[in-house]
Amino acid sequence: MAYKLWYWPGIQGRGEFVRLALEAGGIEYRDMAREQSDEALLADLNARAGRTPFAPPYLDTGETVIAQVANILLYLGERHHLAPGALADRLWLNQLQLTIADLVAEAHDVHHPVATGAYYHEQKAEAACAAEGFRAERMPKFLGHFEDAANANDGDWVAGTRWTYADTSLFQVVEGLRYAFPRRMAAIEGDYPALIALHDRVAQLPGVAAYLASDRRIPFNEDGIFRHYPELDGE
Amino acid sequence: MAYKLWYWPGIQGRGEFVRLALEAGGIEYRDMAREQSDEALLADLNARAGRTPFAPPYLDTGETVIAQVANILLYLGERHHLAPGALADRLWLNQLQLTIADLVAEAHDVHHPVATGAYYHEQKAEAACAAEGFRAERMPKFLGHFEDAANANDGDWVAGTRWTYADTSLFQVVEGLRYAFPRRMAAIEGDYPALIALHDRVAQLPGVAAYLASDRRIPFNEDGIFRHYPELDGE
Repeated sequence: MAYKLWYWPGIQGRGEFVRLALEAGGIEYRDMAREQSDEALLADLNARAGRTPFAPPYLDTGETVIAQVANILLYLGERHHLAPGALADRLWLNQLQLTIADLVAEAHDVHHPVATGAYYHEQKAEAACAAEGFRAERMPKFLGHFEDAANANDGDWVAGTRWTYADTSLFQVVEGLRYAFPRRMAAIEGDYPALIALHDRVAQLPGVAAYLASDRRIPFNEDGIFRHYPELDGE
Repeated sequence: MAYKLWYWPGIQGRGEFVRLALEAGGIEYRDMAREQSDEALLADLNARAGRTPFAPPYLDTGETVIAQVANILLYLGERHHLAPGALADRLWLNQLQLTIADLVAEAHDVHHPVATGAYYHEQKAEAACAAEGFRAERMPKFLGHFEDAANANDGDWVAGTRWTYADTSLFQVVEGLRYAFPRRMAAIEGDYPALIALHDRVAQLPGVAAYLASDRRIPFNEDGIFRHYPELDGE
């Protein structure tokens, strides 16, 4: 049975890390809310009882329902060999994915620093301040860490000789930052050659290349996590 | 060999979720920066190469170094039976811990909405706005989810008949919110009787009771994640 993935149908958002791993691995899934609607997602979420997701994305395997991106990827990694089996490797990939989750949350908070429930245009001054710190301090710190991760092994991938879900997630980090902060990325990405080379290798994986060329890949937009507001970018 | 835990020595912070699981499980560890200093922690962190932590806390097992709270707890859960062995249970506990991590990040961002690198007093107006949304929307949403989790099984604990690291973490969530938002918690915690009962059971675990009575438990303070600024509290 194909997995049922539930996530907001109009954005890449956090769900994209799951979509990329599924597509790269050639794993069959249905993107339920894209087949149906936002309302169907909310109805499904609200109808669940017991061990429920706190928020999308979540993956219905038919036997269990798994939420939280890093948790879904941990499951897919073990079940579909999108991660090595050795304990130290599994922990390292999960750790990397959780650090990526931290970056994603911070990238979101740049345009919504004060109130998630309010609009960007209601908090533009605060967002400008948050963006300055994000560009100057946080982007180099995260990207430097991921560059070290890309260099911390002998193979082409973060855990060695086979791509893993952490590799597809690092691809998405570079994509998202380039979209949201093109001027800043152009200025600094030369400092992270191993990460950029890894990004390029992921883009060439057959499953990823086919996905990116399809209409299943939703374009970045200003409803997602990585948003391009030119006034928040800068060298 | 005792584990070496590295975390900021002056605060509970994120490290407290690890300390509580270790103490509840009677697992031997050394709290390295408390034995030494902040500077020793930074020196240790900066001296590491290869698969490095992005930030504290991290646990040096002698064989590997594990960072990110949920990842450390995943390891301890499997290694020391602080979690059940069945896949669905392990995924559920990890999922809960990741949702707790989301709450912890949001609780931090209440007092530092605009700039993590700046002081609270430099962003008090924005913090007041962030706190209003956190108290009104986010606290009931998270607490309601954890109440459901406490009710989603037949036993006394979130995964059944034995306490797990997710139970000790939920204890800490209640403790932290009571410290930071005492008026708000007094007003609403009656809505979450299963969660509060679980909190009380954790407090009575012998390892936890001994820890809380010891000077190893650092008091909450305004350098940590959960901070009590009376102006950010309210019913």
